[in-house]
Amino acid sequence: MRLTRYTDYAMRVLLYVGARDGALSSIAEIAKAYGISQNHLMKVVNDLVRAGYLASVRGRFGGIRLARPADTINVGAVVRHSEEGFELVDCASCVIAPACGLTGVLGEALAAFMAVLDRYTLADLLTKRDAMAALFGEMPSKAIAEA
Amino acid sequence: MRLTRYTDYAMRVLLYVGARDGALSSIAEIAKAYGISQNHLMKVVNDLVRAGYLASVRGRFGGIRLARPADTINVGAVVRHSEEGFELVDCASCVIAPACGLTGVLGEALAAFMAVLDRYTLADLLTKRDAMAALFGEMPSKAIAEA
Repeated sequence: MRLTRYTDYAMRVLLYVGARDGALSSIAEIAKAYGISQNHLMKVVNDLVRAGYLASVRGRFGGIRLARPADTINVGAVVRHSEEGFELVDCASCVIAPACGLTGVLGEALAAFMAVLDRYTLADLLTKRDAMAALFGEMPSKAIAEA
Repeated sequence: MRLTRYTDYAMRVLLYVGARDGALSSIAEIAKAYGISQNHLMKVVNDLVRAGYLASVRGRFGGIRLARPADTINVGAVVRHSEEGFELVDCASCVIAPACGLTGVLGEALAAFMAVLDRYTLADLLTKRDAMAALFGEMPSKAIAEA
């Protein structure tokens, strides 16, 4: 069972930017820190900006940062936004779907899964912010966050 | 978020065979009923036989049936058996894994998900057995289950 890579990357971006605590980050820097493709990240970042999770500051000293406090960014909401769908198995193509008990049971299990995520915010994932920053290695020096 | 196709097919086989209520089914018949590949099903069926969920009867009038009553086949146990892994995101390759709060939160959410599946058996998924059989269309006439 897996979430999409898209959700994985969306959470990574929010965690990185959240760990920087208001300083601006670049996509290149985030891609390098995680060792992942900058191209894939670009799409995720643009989407998170559009969705109001990230703020983008243009220009030479630009970059991205959280658009709102980490404790107002709900993990369940981010996952719901970034997952394409929650069809755990392919009921849509299955002949017995209207009578099959599995659909309801999986729906109940998924609701329990999401209910846990709904109880946490990005701030809860960042309680070891200093240790995370250390693991990222040398983060670029904290830029002055522009208004 | 998705379970693997393997789990999807394992559940389909158990549901089909469970709906037949002790009569023998062939892989060809199950593949046709769901409109899915016989080759893919073969591997799943062999595995479910090895795992003790299905009994296989050889010979011209052979086939498969449940190896034990449907109310002793736990849905959570089947899913645990058939999923390759439960790493919802790729923490293994992620530099901040040791300090990241997401790992624990996803683990808690997964536990809630599995706890729901653990409360159900195959019998619970088959309460509309007659309606399921009708949706499968003309099932082969009920063979005498061999010892």
